[in-house]
Amino acid sequence: MTKERDPRQIRKACSRSLMGHYPQSLAGILHELAETVRADESPDVYGAGNIIRDFEAEVAQLLGKEAAVFMPSGTMCQPIALRIWTDRRHLPRVGYHPTSHLELHEFQGLQRLHGLETVLIGSPYQLLTLDDLKAVAEPLGALLLELPQREIGGQLPSWDELTAITGWAREHNIATHLDGARLWECKPYYQREYAEIAGLFDSVYVSFYKSLGGISGAVLAGPADMVAEARIWQRRQGGNLYQLYPYVLAARKGLAERLPRMQAYHEKAVAIAAALSVFPQIEILPAVPQTHMMHVFMRGDREQLVESALDIAEETGTWLFGSLSPTQLPAYQKFELSVGDASLDMSTDEIVSLFEKVFAQVEAAR
Amino acid sequence: MTKERDPRQIRKACSRSLMGHYPQSLAGILHELAETVRADESPDVYGAGNIIRDFEAEVAQLLGKEAAVFMPSGTMCQPIALRIWTDRRHLPRVGYHPTSHLELHEFQGLQRLHGLETVLIGSPYQLLTLDDLKAVAEPLGALLLELPQREIGGQLPSWDELTAITGWAREHNIATHLDGARLWECKPYYQREYAEIAGLFDSVYVSFYKSLGGISGAVLAGPADMVAEARIWQRRQGGNLYQLYPYVLAARKGLAERLPRMQAYHEKAVAIAAALSVFPQIEILPAVPQTHMMHVFMRGDREQLVESALDIAEETGTWLFGSLSPTQLPAYQKFELSVGDASLDMSTDEIVSLFEKVFAQVEAAR
Repeated sequence: MTKERDPRQIRKACSRSLMGHYPQSLAGILHELAETVRADESPDVYGAGNIIRDFEAEVAQLLGKEAAVFMPSGTMCQPIALRIWTDRRHLPRVGYHPTSHLELHEFQGLQRLHGLETVLIGSPYQLLTLDDLKAVAEPLGALLLELPQREIGGQLPSWDELTAITGWAREHNIATHLDGARLWECKPYYQREYAEIAGLFDSVYVSFYKSLGGISGAVLAGPADMVAEARIWQRRQGGNLYQLYPYVLAARKGLAERLPRMQAYHEKAVAIAAALSVFPQIEILPAVPQTHMMHVFMRGDREQLVESALDIAEETGTWLFGSLSPTQLPAYQKFELSVGDASLDMSTDEIVSLFEKVFAQVEAAR
Repeated sequence: MTKERDPRQIRKACSRSLMGHYPQSLAGILHELAETVRADESPDVYGAGNIIRDFEAEVAQLLGKEAAVFMPSGTMCQPIALRIWTDRRHLPRVGYHPTSHLELHEFQGLQRLHGLETVLIGSPYQLLTLDDLKAVAEPLGALLLELPQREIGGQLPSWDELTAITGWAREHNIATHLDGARLWECKPYYQREYAEIAGLFDSVYVSFYKSLGGISGAVLAGPADMVAEARIWQRRQGGNLYQLYPYVLAARKGLAERLPRMQAYHEKAVAIAAALSVFPQIEILPAVPQTHMMHVFMRGDREQLVESALDIAEETGTWLFGSLSPTQLPAYQKFELSVGDASLDMSTDEIVSLFEKVFAQVEAAR
């Protein structure tokens, strides 16, 4: 039986969590940000001012690019990058994975605002491969690769496959853009500097509000002339804001505090996956996480599984999951598990015992 | 002779100012915002959550519209409104004043992103009139009117002219959109509620970071179905941010604190204009300000006038102006004077004596 309760309120009342960071009060976030302001900093004005320009330079350097521009969102950065690269080639056609954020979550802004054609490359259930790219029979102006591929559990191609793909694109005059929404989380797998990874691409977008825990905001980095052109498009799309400093301050704080924790997040993800995969009801994708994230597939009735997890959250003050999505196999439901600060404080023994409770409750309810 | 000095630093060091609000430290702004958070409020998520939805409802009601959506900028709101209205009429052509923000400051985003044609209506030096609108020989899908018309000193049409223009548009199936970047400042002139002014239009955009002193952010208000459609376009343009709460909190604070001061700002603008118009070197547009703002035209050498104002700012700690723009008449330079909290604390006697100093210094330098 379904109880009338609000998962958001239940989560808010939890003191521990399997996933993500600890929630902070809104007032607390703003007070903390205020403390990070340096004496010589005043608000940015339409993208000018040291507070934003210094941060852009810092991120450009980290990514090994000539220049960078801070924008409100990745949904703004990426179509702009693709528009610029395809304009320069007089070839308004872009290729990307069928689960790209641009395909699934942006209401076809790339097509409706920028008039670009798209080609879906490869299987929605696997990584895009060099063979998939070679099989595209139409010329492409740009290729977007997402590292890691979020919708398939945060998978990453091997370094050899990645360099083969980007190299082939370069040889065929296809611009390469890196969707780095979760690029920060790729370092443990590749064991390479961000500049080396981003160096395989003509341009790169990174985000600051996921593992880094910022408020919102993104950076597009690339050659100086391309970034200068991107600033024009940013204005056209309504993203050259009068002031962006709350987002910049939070991004800077996140980068300083949480970038050093990526190795720990990855190791915890691997340990959690190993622990959960002991359950016969659970499948993990990928079986060994390559970043901080994984998709957890659970066999069982969706509603009963969620109700059990909410019961346990109320009883124990520990958050496991609050909703499940349907999957291709009706018997399985899934949730995305992203490791954050809160996950680090959960022992695998405790996680296993909580999932034992979940499945016991579901069993009892049958 | 020009001295090497940074007008922004000089302004920062001033304790008084002819225009605008008192500058606040960045840390101070964030601490103050934190104090305005209510106990039941948590961060918004992609446009959902009470903190943003309640504010949208409040602004919709103030403007007498069914619904409203908070966006990062007016440059995002307005092309979206015009796209929706012209889509519905299958007529991708928009008319507006030659000095519209869309024409001057948005790099033709309306054309380049939304594929809309534009018709410039009327003289760039005067308000758009009903006769100007009637003279347009092509069918229009939408008409944008800016109240007040910023680039000509913040002028406003009479209520009769305004109702005649919007009425004629309605009769001719031309959608009407109100560019209300400075709508808050129009109430003293019309002596009517905001809902009555906005009620003449199908949709309206308002801003929160000008007189209201917010950080950034805007609202687009209109019929519920139109606002729902605008949310899709907001996502496409990259403006449906993960979190917008810093802007919402600042907007809410500005609305509560400063909306009641609009009458005082207007009265002060009228008094300042009267005092300055005594100088033979000065022309004011409009001669009697209709809102909180005016354009001040000064006869004299541009560089010398600016240097004098900066000298006086350094000597007296009072900011007058820091740059001047060229005008159609080479002998005249202009600056925009917007009255804010700081202006209210300046007596007209003091203002006159400071401008006497400016002109005396310019005279001495000849």
